[in-house]
Amino acid sequence: MKEKTAEDFMRLALREAEKARVIDEVPVGAVIVRDGKVISRAHNLREKNQKADAHAEMLAIRKASSKLGTWCLDDCDLYVTLEPCMMCTGVIGLSRIHALYYGTSDPKGGTVDSLIQIKTIRHIGTYPKEIHSGILQPECSAILSDFFREKRKKKKRDRNEFRKAQ
Amino acid sequence: MKEKTAEDFMRLALREAEKARVIDEVPVGAVIVRDGKVISRAHNLREKNQKADAHAEMLAIRKASSKLGTWCLDDCDLYVTLEPCMMCTGVIGLSRIHALYYGTSDPKGGTVDSLIQIKTIRHIGTYPKEIHSGILQPECSAILSDFFREKRKKKKRDRNEFRKAQ
Repeated sequence: MKEKTAEDFMRLALREAEKARVIDEVPVGAVIVRDGKVISRAHNLREKNQKADAHAEMLAIRKASSKLGTWCLDDCDLYVTLEPCMMCTGVIGLSRIHALYYGTSDPKGGTVDSLIQIKTIRHIGTYPKEIHSGILQPECSAILSDFFREKRKKKKRDRNEFRKAQ
Repeated sequence: MKEKTAEDFMRLALREAEKARVIDEVPVGAVIVRDGKVISRAHNLREKNQKADAHAEMLAIRKASSKLGTWCLDDCDLYVTLEPCMMCTGVIGLSRIHALYYGTSDPKGGTVDSLIQIKTIRHIGTYPKEIHSGILQPECSAILSDFFREKRKKKKRDRNEFRKAQ
């Protein structure tokens, strides 16, 4: 059997993002992998769960820890479609994830390479040993921009209908 | 009835930290308050739960959201004995906590004022409107330094006993 590539795992993360999109959550997905096997998958569930921390990475990490019975995931890699936010960058470090692979950058909220360059902060120490970005970047970006474009269109439609009804 | 002060609520957070200490968890405690009433309390449970994200602030925020039925805690304040780490600083912002009160600084892991000065990062946007530090600082610091001193003593004792046994 051919060994799976980073792109293969990112494709699974994209499938998770798609599950979020279907239920009108911001479409971000994540997958955790150990020894070439998927340990957990998750997608953004903030609105459904009404929890601010229900981001794909956080949920995937929590599931992986439940499955493996340990908070320490230093033999696991994480694939996520969007550059992690501050909370998720933090928990990726705290859980000792070995390698982080992300799809597209988040210039407004990403704290791995965008708003903060995590590797430059001394003493934080517990960031992943490997960081790889730009895996399936066009697909990971498109699912988000399509989602927000649809949102804006809907908002405009609703506004027009509201005006007509008045 | 006299209105409760920040020190009163920090005392409750310290009680939570004490609960952590008793079960050999790093003694950090947190309390969430709305309209002068305690909504949730929590302490560090990383080892017991085997979850990297089981920090006092994270657990208190999750409990508060469960109780109030919303991820948005913009009418709530959070009291925590130690300066929040990156993950917790992130979730405090994401959950829109109104005011953050912390006890003692964490020069090695704090990302509100120490390693990162959260207010200086443009675009992050969602940090608390108010940040107050140094509430009951000596007590909040002492519970941590006593805990780690005991840990080091125990380690030394164990090492000596191991040597004797050889």
